[in-house]
Parts: sequence; structure tokens; C-alpha cells
Amino acid sequence: MSSSGLPFDDIRQLIAGMPGPDMAAANTVRARDKDLTKPAGSLGRLEEIAEWLAAWQGKAPPRVDRPLVCVFAGNHGVVAQGVSAYPQSVTRQMLENFAAGGAAINQICAAYDLGFKVFDLALDLPTGDFTEGDALDERACVATMAFGMEALAGGADLLALGEMGIGNTTSAAAIFAALYGGSAAEWCGRGTGVDDDGLKRKVAAVEAGLKLHAAHLGDPLEVLRRFGGREIAAICGAILAARLQRIPVILDGYVVTAAAAILHALEPSALDHCLAGHLSAEGAHAQALVRIGKQPLLALDMRLGEGTGAALAAGLVKAAAGVHSGMATFVQAQVSQKGE
Amino acid sequence: MSSSGLPFDDIRQLIAGMPGPDMAAANTVRARDKDLTKPAGSLGRLEEIAEWLAAWQGKAPPRVDRPLVCVFAGNHGVVAQGVSAYPQSVTRQMLENFAAGGAAINQICAAYDLGFKVFDLALDLPTGDFTEGDALDERACVATMAFGMEALAGGADLLALGEMGIGNTTSAAAIFAALYGGSAAEWCGRGTGVDDDGLKRKVAAVEAGLKLHAAHLGDPLEVLRRFGGREIAAICGAILAARLQRIPVILDGYVVTAAAAILHALEPSALDHCLAGHLSAEGAHAQALVRIGKQPLLALDMRLGEGTGAALAAGLVKAAAGVHSGMATFVQAQVSQKGE
Repeated sequence: MSSSGLPFDDIRQLIAGMPGPDMAAANTVRARDKDLTKPAGSLGRLEEIAEWLAAWQGKAPPRVDRPLVCVFAGNHGVVAQGVSAYPQSVTRQMLENFAAGGAAINQICAAYDLGFKVFDLALDLPTGDFTEGDALDERACVATMAFGMEALAGGADLLALGEMGIGNTTSAAAIFAALYGGSAAEWCGRGTGVDDDGLKRKVAAVEAGLKLHAAHLGDPLEVLRRFGGREIAAICGAILAARLQRIPVILDGYVVTAAAAILHALEPSALDHCLAGHLSAEGAHAQALVRIGKQPLLALDMRLGEGTGAALAAGLVKAAAGVHSGMATFVQAQVSQKGE
Repeated sequence: MSSSGLPFDDIRQLIAGMPGPDMAAANTVRARDKDLTKPAGSLGRLEEIAEWLAAWQGKAPPRVDRPLVCVFAGNHGVVAQGVSAYPQSVTRQMLENFAAGGAAINQICAAYDLGFKVFDLALDLPTGDFTEGDALDERACVATMAFGMEALAGGADLLALGEMGIGNTTSAAAIFAALYGGSAAEWCGRGTGVDDDGLKRKVAAVEAGLKLHAAHLGDPLEVLRRFGGREIAAICGAILAARLQRIPVILDGYVVTAAAAILHALEPSALDHCLAGHLSAEGAHAQALVRIGKQPLLALDMRLGEGTGAALAAGLVKAAAGVHSGMATFVQAQVSQKGE
């Protein structure tokens, strides 16, 4: 963090300095694609993915040799409002389950040979309850974003983002309502599976938060620190760091999309290096994806979080990179071209 | 093949004797699923897939240790009508490309560690041109189905089916129109990418075929032999053999679905062990999937064939099996359950 200026201004400066796509690499992929032994366009989104990877990795052919799933975990003061079906202690218990290899995300990483890292964001210090005050102060918010940026230090050529945090779909719903308007009820889903009464409390908490923070909803970074969990702030940081390091990103579901939406609200092109891994069954995720302008790769009626949707999509992206770089051209394979 | 009775009657007998699902295995999976460390239902279609695998493998937990992609290739007399953008010689050239590892399907199999076999179905003997006569006689049709059954002899615990055959989307369109009605134009897509004139010739060929064989469209096996390529008949055989050997099947796109539709028309439950791997961009594949009652796992705007959509789906199915069998239960992981 720079010691000069306000911390949020540092973030704004980073965003203003983001690199754009490498169009030369993308064009090289497009040109090679035309020569591969298949009818033009017949691999649909796999072809788009190869081009997108090249544009954001800045190399052709693109490579996915070190895909990484990063899961950020935080605890939320708003759980005091009874918004979740599970107790807050489950966040840490699930981190232990991740460490022991017993969670869904572990199995998906094993199936597709994806690297896996989990980041504990001060689980013993839940954020403030946003119905009563700010979740984070500005300095803590920026420090957490910076922590998220550090997560990529070990290197990766594809990043899939996930989260864990009892109560965090409530934060995400509040962020979407703050950024995009609409009622709290429209944005609240059942998360881990709250019952009808729990859902009412969740909606009421989001309504209370929107009212309390009403004067500050015009600044996306204020929205982040007032509603957001630490994991949401860290994911914002990781998305930004990936852009600066030329690592394409796969977004997961509702909560990761809320983090992405903060950046998108600051600068619409901030997510150009991101792909929506899947359409979640949680809340109004479809609507959130429309707002950030992303078409999901998968739609499997999943709503677990942990990066599971993003990791499944990473399996497809890995295959897309392999197809592009491994296929023979018509000339190499001595296959006749159209009309020959 | 039995020497008694008509060959098609042997097929009908096989279908009548197909085993049903193993509900005990499926119930075991469903019961274990409730105990896994995730909110109930939060893995959506992954959970359904695990149950489906168990039901048709007849074991719980299901295993995907030997997934196999089988690609069947045939040549089609109807290409004489100018229905394809590529010359017939491309079918064999692509088989050589498969053998050399240069095709898209090779890369997908490599990415997901799927076994891969290709079957050359008498490429030097194209089927008859269905605008002028029958594609196959009954004995050749049944012999080819039997050949397709043999393809599984080496064993597999998941089968993804693919095809290669210049002209075969024309056969598939004719089969759909014969089984389901509707105009030839509704069922004809651009296949490998025919131009407008080629598409007109394709529609005209299907119309001519429907007219020539109009008196025989009531029997699905007659539809198969009159329009179908050898690869389509072999795929019918492979689907049947997989059912008898308790191997769940993943269907690919337009052409594989046409083979599946023949069996579905004979007996609606004949495809209960099959999953639609993807929605193809070819022709009226969405409509065909509705007819056979399948919701595709993927929709990536692909239309290549070769089993590419089925193989990508096999990657997901493999992950689904891994998730179900590898995850810890709440008790094992000492994670608090809902309401605890």
C-alpha cells in the first residue's frame, strides 16, 4: 500500500493502469484456428476460449500448464441476524475439510489436476454486521484486497476463484442491490438452504443495510467495504492482480460475481480477462451475469461455492487450450480442405 | 446373430430383454449424498449424474476408472447428391488424423485421460444413396449393429460415443424427419459448412429419400437401414451392448442422437442409461433432444462430431463420480450440520 493518498485511490490507480488484451496473440490464434482439421467455427466456445486465453496471457498458442484454484474464506458479522442455515463455526470446519481433502472442490481439483490454495482471512475476526455499521473500514478493506493480490505470488497461468464464508450470500445480495437497484427480495436466495423464516431475516438484513448505508451506494468501493466480507475484498484484489500479471480468470458463482461486480462498476473493462465459469442456482445470479455482461460456460444447477463451478469450467478451459495447441493443421495431416 | 428368424427380430428381442436400473445402488448414492459436506442439493446435476451412474453401473459408489470414447466411421452414398462441403475422401483422411493424434477428439481424450478407439466401418464400401435405394440391406444393417456391440469387448465403465462420416448429417436429418415428421428443411443444418446451394441439395436429397421410402417409415429399424450410415447402425449396437453390460453412455451431437432416436422409437426406455453430452449447433439438435427426452449437459455451440461434445461431458461425469466417492461426510469431517 502506498502511504501517500487515500487507500481507495491506490486501487483506482491500479484499475486505471490495467493492461489491455494482446490482440496480436489473439489474432495468431484465430489464424491458426482456421487451418486446424475441422470445419471453421465447429468448436464454438472452445475456439473463443482459446482466443481469449491468448489475448490475456499475451501468448500464442495459449498454455494451461499451471491452473490454480484459489479459495478465500471469511466470516461475517451479519450472521448475527440469523441469515444462514449453518453456524459460523462451519467456515473454519470447512477449511479443515479442504485441508484434509474431503470437500467437493478437492475432488474437482484432483479430477482435472488443478492446483489448489485456500486463504484464511482472519476467520476469528468476523466483519462488522452491516445492518449496524460498516463491515470493514477503508484501510482494512484495502489491506484485504492487497492480501488477495499476493495470493498469486506463486504463479499460475489460469486462475479459478472460489470462496467460503457462512453468511456471504447475504453480503453478495446486498452488494448487488446496492450496485444495481431492485428490491432485497429480488437478490436474496436461500444460500446454503435457509428456511422461509431465515429467508425473511436475510431479506430484512439486506433491507436494513441498504437503508443504513443509503448515502454511500454511489461508490462501488464504499459498497464493498460497507457490505463486503473479507473474502469478497480479497477476490477483488485477486482479479486485479491477475490482470496485471496476465493470468486469465474464471469466476465462480454468486459471491465471486459480487466481487467482480464491484470492479465492473468501477470500470466496465476490468473484467475483460474474466470468464463466467457457471450459472449458479443461487438467488439472482443470472441477472448479475447479465449486469456484468458475461455468458456462463456451464449451467449445472449448482450452488455450493468453494469455486466448484469455476473449477469445473477450468477443466473445459484446459481442454480448449489443449485442443487449440495440439490439433494438426489440414496441411500437416494431409486432410483435404473444403471444396478441394 | 441367431440364424433363426429375421435379423431385425434378434434386435427386437435384445431390446425386450434390456436390464433396468439398479435402484438399490441409486438409493445408496442418494443416501450417502445427504451426508456429504455440502448443503443438500447444492451440486445440482453432479448429484443427479452420480445417481444415474450408480443406477446403470449397478454399483455404489459409481466409478469412472476406464472411460472410453468410441468413434465409428462410415461413408455415405448420398454424398453423390452434393450434400457436403468436403469430399468423401476426408472420412479416411480424418481416421488417419485420429491415428496420428492430430484431431480435436485426441486432445480432449488426452486432457481428461479418456480411452479412445476408432472403428472403420468398411469405408471403401459407402452405403447406397438413399435417394435412389436403400442405404443398407437388413443383413448388413444387423451385422453392422453387431459390430458396434463388439466395440465394447475390451471393457469400460463409461462410454462416450462419436462418429465421423462425410455426409452423415444428411442421413441423420432424414432419420429425424422419418421418425418425427416435419419438413426436410426443418431438420437439415449446414453440417460441415455447406453453402446455400449445398444446403438446397441436402434438403432435396432428404425430401427425395422420404418420398422414395414413404411406405416404410413406420418401422424404426427400416428407417435405420434405408437412410442410416454404417456408423449410425454401429452406434445403435454400441448403445444396446452398453446397456446389457451395465456401461452408462454419453451421447454426442446430431448424428449420434439420430442413432439413439432409432432405439428410442423402438422402446422409449432404451435410452435410460444414456446422457446427452451436449447441445449441438447442428440443425435441429435441440428439437431432437426434446423428442428423446434428454437435457444436454453442455451447450458450447459446437458442431464438430468426432465425439467431441460427449468427451467433454465425460470429463464432467468423471468429476461427478470423483466428487461423490471422494467427499467426506459431515461426521467424518466433523463439520456441523444444518441447525446444529
